[in-house]
Amino acid sequence: MPTTLITGGTVVSSTGRSEADVLVDGGKIAAVLAPGSVLLGSDLKSSVDTVLDATGKYVIPGGIDAHTHMEMPFGGTMASDTFETGTRAAAFGGTTTIVDFAIQRYGERVMDGLGAWHEKAAGECAIDYGFHQIIGDVNDDSLKAMESLVDEGVSSFKLFMAYPGVFYSDDAQIYKAMRVGAGTGLLTMMHAENGPAIDAMVAELLAQGKTDPYYHGVARAWQMEEEATHRAIMLANLTGAPLYVVHVSAKQAVEQVAAARNHGQNVFAETCPHYLYLSLEDQLGAAGFEGAKWVCSTPLRSKQEHHQDQLWQALRTNDVQTVATDHCPFCMKGQKDMGVGDFSKIPNGIGGVEHRLDLMYQGVVDGRISLERWVEITSTTPARMFGLYGRKGVIAPGADADVVIYDPNGHTSIGVGKTHHMNMDYSAWEGYEIDGHVDTVLSRGRVIIDDNQYLGSKGHGQYVKRALSQYLI
Amino acid sequence: MPTTLITGGTVVSSTGRSEADVLVDGGKIAAVLAPGSVLLGSDLKSSVDTVLDATGKYVIPGGIDAHTHMEMPFGGTMASDTFETGTRAAAFGGTTTIVDFAIQRYGERVMDGLGAWHEKAAGECAIDYGFHQIIGDVNDDSLKAMESLVDEGVSSFKLFMAYPGVFYSDDAQIYKAMRVGAGTGLLTMMHAENGPAIDAMVAELLAQGKTDPYYHGVARAWQMEEEATHRAIMLANLTGAPLYVVHVSAKQAVEQVAAARNHGQNVFAETCPHYLYLSLEDQLGAAGFEGAKWVCSTPLRSKQEHHQDQLWQALRTNDVQTVATDHCPFCMKGQKDMGVGDFSKIPNGIGGVEHRLDLMYQGVVDGRISLERWVEITSTTPARMFGLYGRKGVIAPGADADVVIYDPNGHTSIGVGKTHHMNMDYSAWEGYEIDGHVDTVLSRGRVIIDDNQYLGSKGHGQYVKRALSQYLI
Amino acid sequence: MPTTLITGGTVVSSTGRSEADVLVDGGKIAAVLAPGSVLLGSDLKSSVDTVLDATGKYVIPGGIDAHTHMEMPFGGTMASDTFETGTRAAAFGGTTTIVDFAIQRYGERVMDGLGAWHEKAAGECAIDYGFHQIIGDVNDDSLKAMESLVDEGVSSFKLFMAYPGVFYSDDAQIYKAMRVGAGTGLLTMMHAENGPAIDAMVAELLAQGKTDPYYHGVARAWQMEEEATHRAIMLANLTGAPLYVVHVSAKQAVEQVAAARNHGQNVFAETCPHYLYLSLEDQLGAAGFEGAKWVCSTPLRSKQEHHQDQLWQALRTNDVQTVATDHCPFCMKGQKDMGVGDFSKIPNGIGGVEHRLDLMYQGVVDGRISLERWVEITSTTPARMFGLYGRKGVIAPGADADVVIYDPNGHTSIGVGKTHHMNMDYSAWEGYEIDGHVDTVLSRGRVIIDDNQYLGSKGHGQYVKRALSQYLI
Amino acid sequence: MPTTLITGGTVVSSTGRSEADVLVDGGKIAAVLAPGSVLLGSDLKSSVDTVLDATGKYVIPGGIDAHTHMEMPFGGTMASDTFETGTRAAAFGGTTTIVDFAIQRYGERVMDGLGAWHEKAAGECAIDYGFHQIIGDVNDDSLKAMESLVDEGVSSFKLFMAYPGVFYSDDAQIYKAMRVGAGTGLLTMMHAENGPAIDAMVAELLAQGKTDPYYHGVARAWQMEEEATHRAIMLANLTGAPLYVVHVSAKQAVEQVAAARNHGQNVFAETCPHYLYLSLEDQLGAAGFEGAKWVCSTPLRSKQEHHQDQLWQALRTNDVQTVATDHCPFCMKGQKDMGVGDFSKIPNGIGGVEHRLDLMYQGVVDGRISLERWVEITSTTPARMFGLYGRKGVIAPGADADVVIYDPNGHTSIGVGKTHHMNMDYSAWEGYEIDGHVDTVLSRGRVIIDDNQYLGSKGHGQYVKRALSQYLI
Repeated sequence: MPTTLITGGTVVSSTGRSEADVLVDGGKIAAVLAPGSVLLGSDLKSSVDTVLDATGKYVIPGGIDAHTHMEMPFGGTMASDTFETGTRAAAFGGTTTIVDFAIQRYGERVMDGLGAWHEKAAGECAIDYGFHQIIGDVNDDSLKAMESLVDEGVSSFKLFMAYPGVFYSDDAQIYKAMRVGAGTGLLTMMHAENGPAIDAMVAELLAQGKTDPYYHGVARAWQMEEEATHRAIMLANLTGAPLYVVHVSAKQAVEQVAAARNHGQNVFAETCPHYLYLSLEDQLGAAGFEGAKWVCSTPLRSKQEHHQDQLWQALRTNDVQTVATDHCPFCMKGQKDMGVGDFSKIPNGIGGVEHRLDLMYQGVVDGRISLERWVEITSTTPARMFGLYGRKGVIAPGADADVVIYDPNGHTSIGVGKTHHMNMDYSAWEGYEIDGHVDTVLSRGRVIIDDNQYLGSKGHGQYVKRALSQYLI
Repeated sequence: MPTTLITGGTVVSSTGRSEADVLVDGGKIAAVLAPGSVLLGSDLKSSVDTVLDATGKYVIPGGIDAHTHMEMPFGGTMASDTFETGTRAAAFGGTTTIVDFAIQRYGERVMDGLGAWHEKAAGECAIDYGFHQIIGDVNDDSLKAMESLVDEGVSSFKLFMAYPGVFYSDDAQIYKAMRVGAGTGLLTMMHAENGPAIDAMVAELLAQGKTDPYYHGVARAWQMEEEATHRAIMLANLTGAPLYVVHVSAKQAVEQVAAARNHGQNVFAETCPHYLYLSLEDQLGAAGFEGAKWVCSTPLRSKQEHHQDQLWQALRTNDVQTVATDHCPFCMKGQKDMGVGDFSKIPNGIGGVEHRLDLMYQGVVDGRISLERWVEITSTTPARMFGLYGRKGVIAPGADADVVIYDPNGHTSIGVGKTHHMNMDYSAWEGYEIDGHVDTVLSRGRVIIDDNQYLGSKGHGQYVKRALSQYLI
Repeated sequence: MPTTLITGGTVVSSTGRSEADVLVDGGKIAAVLAPGSVLLGSDLKSSVDTVLDATGKYVIPGGIDAHTHMEMPFGGTMASDTFETGTRAAAFGGTTTIVDFAIQRYGERVMDGLGAWHEKAAGECAIDYGFHQIIGDVNDDSLKAMESLVDEGVSSFKLFMAYPGVFYSDDAQIYKAMRVGAGTGLLTMMHAENGPAIDAMVAELLAQGKTDPYYHGVARAWQMEEEATHRAIMLANLTGAPLYVVHVSAKQAVEQVAAARNHGQNVFAETCPHYLYLSLEDQLGAAGFEGAKWVCSTPLRSKQEHHQDQLWQALRTNDVQTVATDHCPFCMKGQKDMGVGDFSKIPNGIGGVEHRLDLMYQGVVDGRISLERWVEITSTTPARMFGLYGRKGVIAPGADADVVIYDPNGHTSIGVGKTHHMNMDYSAWEGYEIDGHVDTVLSRGRVIIDDNQYLGSKGHGQYVKRALSQYLI
Repeated sequence: MPTTLITGGTVVSSTGRSEADVLVDGGKIAAVLAPGSVLLGSDLKSSVDTVLDATGKYVIPGGIDAHTHMEMPFGGTMASDTFETGTRAAAFGGTTTIVDFAIQRYGERVMDGLGAWHEKAAGECAIDYGFHQIIGDVNDDSLKAMESLVDEGVSSFKLFMAYPGVFYSDDAQIYKAMRVGAGTGLLTMMHAENGPAIDAMVAELLAQGKTDPYYHGVARAWQMEEEATHRAIMLANLTGAPLYVVHVSAKQAVEQVAAARNHGQNVFAETCPHYLYLSLEDQLGAAGFEGAKWVCSTPLRSKQEHHQDQLWQALRTNDVQTVATDHCPFCMKGQKDMGVGDFSKIPNGIGGVEHRLDLMYQGVVDGRISLERWVEITSTTPARMFGLYGRKGVIAPGADADVVIYDPNGHTSIGVGKTHHMNMDYSAWEGYEIDGHVDTVLSRGRVIIDDNQYLGSKGHGQYVKRALSQYLI
């Protein structure tokens, strides 16, 4: 099998950094070695097939984006990235694994949903992928089916406290599903917003003629995120289920998570780059229908209320454990524009799978988080959280050789026509400048991105069976 | 330089484990490699000088005990372990680095104190050692001297809110010293107990004829630990100094630390094995004068109030970051017995430098913490906290080859005449049984403990200059 | 109109006590006077029709029980006290006003429900009465009808987060009803338990053969009360509605209320005597089917978890504002016994309207609350909370002469055949001994209880229109 | 004895209001009666000596200002109001009782200090007065003397955590004094600021040339108020002493008090009008030396940090229980100007005894607090807190006839040359406009203020012995 030596770089882990070379043998990391590439007299550099010079650069485990929705049907349309386009864009951004959501819809069987997603993804992906399972219809059949998920390599499932009539589970359903979670070890992922109350408020606002995208943010008030987060925590407390709250955007929701964790409960929170940088006022409140670009749920929050600062702080203090993208792209033309005159008809979602590592690295540059924490929240913790650690999320012998060479002296300009490879007709991050650059990306030992070129291939990415969470406290 | 290969073991880091071999070259780790020891055709096993078989065992970074007091003068006597006896005992227990406290006494110069401790330790130690600096007399001279500490490799200093007339600093002194801490990056370590109020209570109890060791624990009430912890936090908040609270034993003090951390403040807490296992009722309250064995400050806490459980939980949730021993041994005969009839005269201290890894491993066996967390709190975080990471606290190329081979199928019986090598005439842990065993210990590549034999030598241990803390949030 | 002078007593208000005489003229209090009954030369004692000697006794405003369910249909049966028997029992215990719950059932019109309750009560009552309105079916019609409630003298309505299929409102309904509450000033009363989750747990327990009354308490876990309390608070926060949480029994629910109040939100909590004295272990867990006597919702809580102590403390600190009885009596024979073999079929309710003042007075004797606080939580605050103050809840000129003469040197033995006048075949308080006694009770100037004799008459009690709450912070 | 009837007004208590007449007989309230003044045929109006028409006005218990410093020596000068001028100004503002601070200085005897204050006040006051005792030197003698204070009618003493070298007590002294407090029932009042740390910061600022009044506020940072408040609470917790924190200005200090109260501890907080209305930016930061007018300790806080809003909220939620003035006036000329060029030399204090009722009434007009709460925080609770209730703080038979007739349709313009009668050459409240007016003030039955005229006399005011606190929870 071909061998590669990454030399001269600084290997960064979630606890520190070391000057070290990384030897890749086939798809795996074979060794991490003192730099210089001489080992017991053997000059590795001249023995390997390929040498990648990482001098002056960071060598980090490939990014793991644990929250994406490729080709997801939503609101009468379909997320605009396929597994092919979406995973290729991810690769450009240094992400080497995604965990996407297979969906069981109302009236469907769980395993049919999972099977459908396997079909969508198989042979299409540039990078490895796993699945969470959305349980959109909790009933005796689906509860029983959940017990087989671990065998399928699906160690987490997601429920929705929002979207009544679509994915919504009531509290009895959540209780029952969490009981299965507690029994099987499956991690319960929760979209925590009080959908019924929000929908009542949406109707109220629309009736008042408040139809602009801005009101999407008003209707989905922080109170209803905080409330649902707390409710999910208490149901988890009662049932004994570990809980992972997805896309947290309200500082008050973070406080609920932090309080539960202080009490020793296995509760975790994920946030997304857009909640860290963007706001109700500046983006959702943009003139005309422009704000539709940033319609997603949970919504962007008010910067006057300092949610963004609090989320950054929570990232530092580990009250929030991971950053994912909730990648769910829709084009303005033909998709987002379904909601002109009625914000509730705008498909919910922001595309960002490509920019996560860069955007979070900018947090390092800005002094928001440490370099180690950057690796931790984008790769190591997602790996541990979702049962991928050992294989992914770490530069260590035996692990898949998913490696990114990141240049702190490089530069990245985000935007359509710049670094944008997602299948969207706009960028939620147009104009953002990053003081760093994804130089080279290896997926299981193969260089798939180098010097802004895609060297990978459709179908290289494989399905990854996941073990139970390795992160429980 | 001699080479060693540790084969067949499971390398455990603070984030996970991998099956890997560790190649040691001289005093450093040269590589971490996929098991099997064949690398690009080269059979390492036959190339190295020594092979250590770690099959079925854990390979972990050597323990770092960041809180010891060898040969410390206290209460008219001297801690009974010298640097020689104490570091040898530490080695037996898998600890390969200690950070001891150099002392500036009232009226003395800081650098003289540091010099004195260098003299005590030089040429005596079995393992590497560093120093914190106790500032027992904050004044213009000592404040100025503190600015040179970083250059000396002393990146932390300790103040006392207890012991008026001995080490005590008042709040103006703390304010000034913390300002220097904030300016230089020195980490402020704090003995957080309200000494003046405690001493008033001690006098009250003695006047009432309450002279037994038990009343040591009554006098040093949790309220006074919680109070001082909070005060230190607020002074740190005001001055901008990072803060590390030593030997936390009260759950309420932990709550204060957790709250500060949730607010993004750089505040850290250390606890000790005795606060996790032992109690006011069972040990301090032992019949007769027996309780004197466990007189230390902060004191053991009431198990009825569940401090122990809460500390274990806080270890899990990272509200407490490190476990040290506060090793400060005194013999019962001739030392502890100075306090017969007056608990306030009992020298404060418990010896434990030898048993920390074992006692904490038992927490893994008992389901209190994960295997990874064990490594984190005993080695990786202390290394990061005190500026040793890279050199210590991790199994990675370039790091010192301080390595412990720990056998989860072994067994350790603690007690005088069993695994006890500390210079004490009793053991605070007599009778404790551990479901694991320190098999082999390497210090900078040299096997110093193997099969319960000491193979090291006095003076092998070197002084380690420490960098600034690498753990700030 | 007949005049009465109550002389020699200590008038107790919620802020203090004064030695004073009380002059009653017709149904109203005419004056509160310095004792001695001589005013500007006029000897009142000889001028009035009746003199009541209260020497050595407390003169307090008549009790207000703001939570009763006379003749309420529930679970296929009917609460066993009629307005006649229930209000007579109340009078024996020093309660001179009740606020009962009129019910709109699913599919019914609000005003029909209110009308039905007027019919039940009119001409039957021994003491004055008002109504809250239960909205069991929130829809466009009932929301509109709610706007007329204030004109009817009904300034509060109640929703249920429990009992799906019976009284349950989902969060969209709660949102809408609270919006009306915020707009009209109506106080939202909430039964805060997560019914759907609880019902799922009930089914689980029954399926496991856990059918004893004890499991009623297990199923209705504190987590589900705490959760619903928090949810109600956040919905109130979002809508701007003032909120009153009925029958709080879990200490964690109290913490939620306290936190909201600390943040300035108009949130209030009521508890009941049974939550203060009785427990899951001692009563619900009584041998055989005995526990059925104490089946009510929220349930009695574990004394090992110290809910009772925490509730007493919250009463002291005003984190709980009122004590009502939730009087909802069912006989063991023919009613409670419907649930033999299936705790979920036991009618929910405890009778206690007669004993509230006595039981709370015992809290004064036991040092739990002050004498003033006793008056405050049983009369003054309920009056203010529910818009009765001025007319009820205070000994002041112009107020209704609803007055109790309470003897701190008297004694009351509670139990069937002792002081029990409720229409129940058992007493939830059998054997309780009270170090005080309700000597004399006046309702609008008329002595209706004296020396354990009922001197009142059916129909003396009148409907009281209530104003909006006078207690908002 | 002369009789007075106050007719037609609305009597406001801390729980509600009633239309009632108040009959005064000599110095006491003889009766509170239904309006119309006819009682059993007797027309009171024509029987009394004087009729005061309060139609359309509020009749409230006279204000109690529990924190004043008349003629207090401080910083080398003397507070500019004597007992004569200060109490007369108080009377103009509707305050009929002050509790001033007798002082034991370092090296003095407690009873000598108390005696000195009796001498200063005797025969000078326009209104009644009591004393707290400042213990400026906690030692065996003063601790013993404290035990006699209750007999002297002094049921509270004050300690200082600030002002080292002047009034400062260290924590051992506080511990000992609180123990006496717990044993005797004396209420511990605390000036809660960390003086030693503040003084260190003051020196630092002055050394940096930051000498303007503004830096007084910077140096006395909220952290040091919060810290000291917490410390006092924990010492009170340990000793069992009830605690009253004076002049709270930082929202974080309020949070500490609220948390302690939620836990059932007897902790109370007082704030002052200047902390509710004025700010670091607008007043202390005024141009030039102007800010000196508002130099007081604790200092005015930043409005950007919303301390003012939080204090108002805490007043509503009863997390703060009383409003006093901390009246401690100094003239700009000859007093405040001692600190030109060095803010630390500006005498600390603001005069306000005259305007408290008006300023707090404006809070009613502005919707900050209810009318009832106004009476509660300015009169009823201070009376209960300091053992005056029954005699003061309530309109009830037997109470002293200290009554204010307040006109909600009146108007008051504050400022030198307007309503200002304090002996100060400036007003801290210059230009404030109040939508209400103190029309008439009775002190023990005698009209001392009417229509802006002073009808009282020096020496009318008497010393009031106080009982133990009646407010403990």
